[in-house]
Amino acid sequence: MANFKGHALPGSFFLIVGLWWSVKYPLKYFQQKQKNSRLQHYQQRLEIIEAAIRTLFSVIGILAEQFVPDGPHFHLYNENHWITLMNWQHSTMYLFFAVSGIVDMLTYLVTHVPLGLDRLLLAVAVFTEGFLFYYHVHNRPPLDQHIHLLLVFVLFGGGVSIFLEVIFRDNIVLELFRTSLVILQGTWFWQIGFVLFPPFGTPEWDQADETNIMFITMCFCWHYLAALCIMATNYSLVYCLLIRMKRRGEGEIIGIQKLKSDHTYQTALLSGSDEE
Amino acid sequence: MANFKGHALPGSFFLIVGLWWSVKYPLKYFQQKQKNSRLQHYQQRLEIIEAAIRTLFSVIGILAEQFVPDGPHFHLYNENHWITLMNWQHSTMYLFFAVSGIVDMLTYLVTHVPLGLDRLLLAVAVFTEGFLFYYHVHNRPPLDQHIHLLLVFVLFGGGVSIFLEVIFRDNIVLELFRTSLVILQGTWFWQIGFVLFPPFGTPEWDQADETNIMFITMCFCWHYLAALCIMATNYSLVYCLLIRMKRRGEGEIIGIQKLKSDHTYQTALLSGSDEE
Amino acid sequence: MANFKGHALPGSFFLIVGLWWSVKYPLKYFQQKQKNSRLQHYQQRLEIIEAAIRTLFSVIGILAEQFVPDGPHFHLYNENHWITLMNWQHSTMYLFFAVSGIVDMLTYLVTHVPLGLDRLLLAVAVFTEGFLFYYHVHNRPPLDQHIHLLLVFVLFGGGVSIFLEVIFRDNIVLELFRTSLVILQGTWFWQIGFVLFPPFGTPEWDQADETNIMFITMCFCWHYLAALCIMATNYSLVYCLLIRMKRRGEGEIIGIQKLKSDHTYQTALLSGSDEE
Amino acid sequence: MANFKGHALPGSFFLIVGLWWSVKYPLKYFQQKQKNSRLQHYQQRLEIIEAAIRTLFSVIGILAEQFVPDGPHFHLYNENHWITLMNWQHSTMYLFFAVSGIVDMLTYLVTHVPLGLDRLLLAVAVFTEGFLFYYHVHNRPPLDQHIHLLLVFVLFGGGVSIFLEVIFRDNIVLELFRTSLVILQGTWFWQIGFVLFPPFGTPEWDQADETNIMFITMCFCWHYLAALCIMATNYSLVYCLLIRMKRRGEGEIIGIQKLKSDHTYQTALLSGSDEE
Repeated sequence: MANFKGHALPGSFFLIVGLWWSVKYPLKYFQQKQKNSRLQHYQQRLEIIEAAIRTLFSVIGILAEQFVPDGPHFHLYNENHWITLMNWQHSTMYLFFAVSGIVDMLTYLVTHVPLGLDRLLLAVAVFTEGFLFYYHVHNRPPLDQHIHLLLVFVLFGGGVSIFLEVIFRDNIVLELFRTSLVILQGTWFWQIGFVLFPPFGTPEWDQADETNIMFITMCFCWHYLAALCIMATNYSLVYCLLIRMKRRGEGEIIGIQKLKSDHTYQTALLSGSDEE
Repeated sequence: MANFKGHALPGSFFLIVGLWWSVKYPLKYFQQKQKNSRLQHYQQRLEIIEAAIRTLFSVIGILAEQFVPDGPHFHLYNENHWITLMNWQHSTMYLFFAVSGIVDMLTYLVTHVPLGLDRLLLAVAVFTEGFLFYYHVHNRPPLDQHIHLLLVFVLFGGGVSIFLEVIFRDNIVLELFRTSLVILQGTWFWQIGFVLFPPFGTPEWDQADETNIMFITMCFCWHYLAALCIMATNYSLVYCLLIRMKRRGEGEIIGIQKLKSDHTYQTALLSGSDEE
Repeated sequence: MANFKGHALPGSFFLIVGLWWSVKYPLKYFQQKQKNSRLQHYQQRLEIIEAAIRTLFSVIGILAEQFVPDGPHFHLYNENHWITLMNWQHSTMYLFFAVSGIVDMLTYLVTHVPLGLDRLLLAVAVFTEGFLFYYHVHNRPPLDQHIHLLLVFVLFGGGVSIFLEVIFRDNIVLELFRTSLVILQGTWFWQIGFVLFPPFGTPEWDQADETNIMFITMCFCWHYLAALCIMATNYSLVYCLLIRMKRRGEGEIIGIQKLKSDHTYQTALLSGSDEE
Repeated sequence: MANFKGHALPGSFFLIVGLWWSVKYPLKYFQQKQKNSRLQHYQQRLEIIEAAIRTLFSVIGILAEQFVPDGPHFHLYNENHWITLMNWQHSTMYLFFAVSGIVDMLTYLVTHVPLGLDRLLLAVAVFTEGFLFYYHVHNRPPLDQHIHLLLVFVLFGGGVSIFLEVIFRDNIVLELFRTSLVILQGTWFWQIGFVLFPPFGTPEWDQADETNIMFITMCFCWHYLAALCIMATNYSLVYCLLIRMKRRGEGEIIGIQKLKSDHTYQTALLSGSDEE
């Protein structure tokens, strides 16, 4: 779907996943010391719901790519040419994310699936996306190529980081890194849409201009900075919320004592994460 | 052996190895908590037999490459040109797999060979295959080059993953990843055969057409998906078989109690794999 | 700032950071066995001060790049061209180091920020610098390109090493490696200044001469050797100083007994670092 | 030293180091369970002597490169051209190995030098060699370039493996891998000498012939196979020698009992190496 919508839709999807993760992982991190079996039960259910939604959206993505008016409608070859390979490639990307979502669900629902397989499949899905993008942009104008290749950097970097999670599972820093890259991917899809298909009648970008490429490179870094800021904000909000809930739960014990206990509680958390 | 058979034979070999591994590793994983010395003894014997068969087939591969009618018959240089370097390169690849098989056998038979050396040699064999493939396809038509280079990705990725097993040995996720890549390699060899040497009189592929290259890239991802499905099926079959055997072994205790004990058993397995 | 000063200033900044780290990390290493809470308190305060100074200098760097006479003064786009993208790119590099400094401070001040995030952000800042440099030097003379690309090697190598510190935190060898690379970066910026903008009226370098490129490559290795020597010297000085201070503190017990206790103390240190 | 001797000499040097390591590491591996302080003392002394010899030979290498008849005699720049940069580059390579040797000695002699620094410096020396080689072979005939680039693969692969030893120290598999790569480097230098400067009046190789390049690629794999065989032989010899010595030391207890105790002893060794 080589138009503005075709970039805005997956962008929004990645953005929503990123924002959700930037809430989920801090939440999980702050609660990890509380050995509460009911809490763990809720967490597992949440993971399953998340995976189900991700799978659902991937399937919707596949169907959308196939049944848009100029889509292939699941026809692959016609007489002597391939039919809209672009849409087929996008469908393939979504398909891998759907598989990753299904494996995520299985890891939590079926107890004999080994932990870490969900991360492996996610890494595979991300690598595949990067791999297809890399061969996707052949024979296009320089700016178009460059703006997509920047995404490939994110995808391969993210793939390696997720692969590391197979071995170093539940490392909050790796999880936050992954989250920031997903947010970056989301905002960058929007940026690609704005640059290649200016939506509000703004003038076209000169796709062969060297300075445009230089600006886009820098702009990419700013996007990552924005992604980090969004993540930091959500992290802080989650922390404040938890502290407030805890304070209300504890009831009367307010004042200096609270500060002290907070400090101890936080130190315990930190020393706990230290062991990984 | 630049013909259909020359790709179908190694493809079948890799496919068989992959299918066997997709049965062996789940089996090993489900049984790892049972500290049964007789079981361990059988497992070791199985590993030795597997390594012996792999070595045998590699040697057959070498001999086949050397003694096909237009093969080099172990002659390397004649007057002033090298004799069928292609066949020599294939022989070299097989040779490394033979060495890897021998080291596998030694690791289990001779107790003073350090564990991990078998994985190192397997990684070396895989790297060597990728390395020779990389320099193999120089000066060929674009589609031919591309279809072989995709294999190089698998081989280098697999090589890194196997090298990691030197340090993180017996990690089920890495083992399953390796298995899936071997199956992929097997099916991809068949695909190469079908594309470059259409066997049933189907028309030739245009080897310089850009869209063919794009389709092949995507097709490669589908092959990996198929490999994952095959592996998942075998994994589930092994699990069901083990549960059924266990149930029959236990005899009477059926019903709710079984479900419960299963669950505990599985959780134990998972928490065991967690420590790695 | 494409002149001698524009390279000497960041060079000096990196050099100072490198020299400071080559004192700080040995100091921390020798004191890590002493479970002294007052000492730990001082160390934390020192880290915070260091991070604050780093942030301050990064902000100064941003302002300098923006408000030099031919700078962009925070204007980005004018009529139909981008304004001094070079200065904007340099500002972006400084911005990431500023963010890294802020996260460093937060890690020590705010106890609920996970350890390792400071290293991740530092790695990101270093990667970003390398990334921007890589696309920075397009369309320049060969020597200019080469002399900047050598820096990219350092930055990507350093980035990987710092990323490893997320997982293997407080590993003295990784910390010293990082220190040596920072010193190298500092001296190399000076070298770039001397080569591309000879300050004292010395003749210009022929930027297309192959032998100049070969010499610069070798010169780069010598710089690293110099960086290692500087680091080794500071390491030894810190050690001698600590031993002298300890001797004075202990007062009378001098002679053979001291040598013996030193030895035990050092062995304890080493075996301690061994566990990581 | 672009002649046969100039490749045979460093080749012999690397070969000797490789052969020595293929004896040393198995020896260390088989003895690691014996907590004998006198043995450890001998081992340390041996390491120091080895490092001293390595340093000595590196210094000899530097002097030889500088003072051969057409060498630079420590002059770098003359009027307006660089003097014999080749020799200077070789000197730089040797210099880094000398530094690595010195740090090795310091790690064992001076107890406050952190373990792992010796590995880091060795990795740096190997990387530097690869780095200089990479920029060394510009503008040469294809075969000359290719035959040197194959060495760069070894050097970067070896560099990564040695860097891993900073974290996973005393892993016998990584040490044996390193050993095999050093032997490969040694024999390959000899091969380069034979190909580029045929010593016994054999005809010159056509340096632009594609088939020659293909053969050399394959030949490189055979060299590695040879290196593996040499290492395996030495490994076995060391094992047999140790068993014989042990048997003689134990005196009378021969027969079945020996076999049993051997087995237990070896299993203990293996399970010991398992923990790393």
